[in-house]
Order: sequence, then structure tokens, then C-alpha cells
Amino acid sequence: MLLAKIYVTFKEGVPDPQGETMGQSLLAMGYQGVLSVRTGKYLEIKLATADKDAASREVEEMCRRLLANSVIEQYRYTLEECC
Amino acid sequence: MLLAKIYVTFKEGVPDPQGETMGQSLLAMGYQGVLSVRTGKYLEIKLATADKDAASREVEEMCRRLLANSVIEQYRYTLEECC
Repeated sequence: MLLAKIYVTFKEGVPDPQGETMGQSLLAMGYQGVLSVRTGKYLEIKLATADKDAASREVEEMCRRLLANSVIEQYRYTLEECC
Repeated sequence: MLLAKIYVTFKEGVPDPQGETMGQSLLAMGYQGVLSVRTGKYLEIKLATADKDAASREVEEMCRRLLANSVIEQYRYTLEECC
């Protein structure tokens, strides 16, 4: 079994109002050292296969087709043995 | 300058309907090897300090106070030099 850990983040230059709001909140709470906050999605997908090459192709395709919006988001992932 | 990479995920046993929906969609799209999908938040926070110990204490506190809901979520983070 494999565990895919997928990180989906906004491409550089894409506005991130949720991150900006969090940054402002942190400043207001006294964390003066906060320069910026960027938000993203983190996904863990358990896969039945043990074949890393096949899994990598499949995860890549899932990201393109469903998990990330390639107009504004980029993704990266790792695969590890699990469970 | 430091970059904090923060991962906020649901604690084990906490229902994740968004993850379940994604899993069902992936199955419906033909990815029969998908066993489960768990969703989480991924945050990147740039900090002005270069002091890793101070930054670590601060990030820990931010997670507890604002970024994670400790009733249902857990968090972990890494700190790296950046920019």
C-alpha cells in the first residue's frame, strides 16, 4: 500500500485573500514578525498498489483532472510505503 | 528570514466528508486503487526572524490560538531558512 501526500498551492502572483486575512489576524494578535501567509490544500490518499511508478502516474493524472485547478494552482506530491 | 510550513489535518476518527466525496469522485473516474482520501490545510508563513527557537515557539502558539481547531484537528510544521 502507498500513501500519496499531495500539496496544492496557489501559483505565484495569484491573490490569496484567505491567507491575507490570516496574516492580518496574526498581526492583530501581536505576531509582528509575520510577513506573509499563503494557504493551500493538503491531501493524503491511500492507494492499494505497491508499484511506485504506476502510482506516480496515477496521482499526477488525478491532480491534473480533479485535485488542482491548473489555471491558478500548482501541485507537488510524495509517495511513501504505508500502513 | 524563515519559512514555516504548517500542515493541519483532522485527528483520527474525525469524519472528513470532503475527503470522502473526493474519494468517491476518484473511484467514479476509474481510479479503483483509491482506498481513502483525507483532506487538510497547508500553510506557508514567512517570518522576519532568523531565530529558529523563537520562531518555533511562536508558530506553535499561532497554531494553538488561530490556525488549528484542537478539538478536531492536529498540526505539525517545519521551519526552514528562506528567501
